[in-house]
Amino acid sequence: MGKIRQGPQTWLYPMPTLLVGANVDGKANFMAVAWGGIANGEPPMISVAIRHSRYTLKGIRQNLAFSVNVPTCDMVTEADYCGLKSGAKFDKAAVCGFKVFYGKLDSAPLIEQCPVNLECKVVHILNLGSHALVIGRIEETHVSESCLTDGEPDVNKVKPFAFISGKARCYQALGDYVAKAFSIGKELKTGS
Amino acid sequence: MGKIRQGPQTWLYPMPTLLVGANVDGKANFMAVAWGGIANGEPPMISVAIRHSRYTLKGIRQNLAFSVNVPTCDMVTEADYCGLKSGAKFDKAAVCGFKVFYGKLDSAPLIEQCPVNLECKVVHILNLGSHALVIGRIEETHVSESCLTDGEPDVNKVKPFAFISGKARCYQALGDYVAKAFSIGKELKTGS
Repeated sequence: MGKIRQGPQTWLYPMPTLLVGANVDGKANFMAVAWGGIANGEPPMISVAIRHSRYTLKGIRQNLAFSVNVPTCDMVTEADYCGLKSGAKFDKAAVCGFKVFYGKLDSAPLIEQCPVNLECKVVHILNLGSHALVIGRIEETHVSESCLTDGEPDVNKVKPFAFISGKARCYQALGDYVAKAFSIGKELKTGS
Repeated sequence: MGKIRQGPQTWLYPMPTLLVGANVDGKANFMAVAWGGIANGEPPMISVAIRHSRYTLKGIRQNLAFSVNVPTCDMVTEADYCGLKSGAKFDKAAVCGFKVFYGKLDSAPLIEQCPVNLECKVVHILNLGSHALVIGRIEETHVSESCLTDGEPDVNKVKPFAFISGKARCYQALGDYVAKAFSIGKELKTGS
């Protein structure tokens, strides 16, 4: 199996589709972000990479607070719209029909229609080049009651979707169960 | 639709399943990581969260270099094994039958069987609490020739898989195409 060198690329699979929210000049705004991930376990933290010029970043700096909302497949049109338009010109929450609510923090707007919502307080903003890497401490988690199984989010009810970058750029749902985690690997013989 | 507050949780969907590699005391070692994401665009960077006690982190500190390898569904047993065992006790690359190669850097071991491989130089290591957030500049990208379409990785050939946390913890493949990105959102009427 041959390998082709492609130069430095931001190719990672799968990447999530997330809606990052902040109040900008007092009004809720949301942007689509694929470049994010959990950054720490105890305390729980998350990181999202945001281009410096983005309107949402202005609001994150104003409040040192933001939200991460996981959209469900039915919201793909709205999520994509939030990645196409700027809150500087459009009231994206209104156009998308988002029901905005607040939880523990009073400055991290949350989207009711998104099954999972994280409220975050900024702990670091790193300037890495084209983007700011915003690291937030997760202060509270909200889950839609209809998406819970045994008290935890059920991914088959949440129905999140991945963002596929490159020329093929598209959204893809989660698919088949592959294996039990922290389990199937035990089948490998270690010789000990 | 009611919301349930769950306290601070590391619940993000989807999260990737990645194999992070480093040479520890001169020997290639790999660990499974779900907490990672792209951290910057220009220059390309990636972040991975690693518990301080992990053997792989020792190697990342020794070399200030690491790799991120995207396993394919056929490698789920090996990927899970790399999350179960420590390189301090087992030669994981040997047990898994990984063909290890090196690219541009001489200290970031890559797995030939993984369709996508990123070579990274450390630019930051942040102590965030239980974990170190390792931020690396992506120096080179390798893609298996058999997984390319029009010169880019084809996610339907790469066949990456997500890690689903919580009680249900498992791996799930990518599934159905949902919509074209930077496109379907144009259907929303903005009233302007």
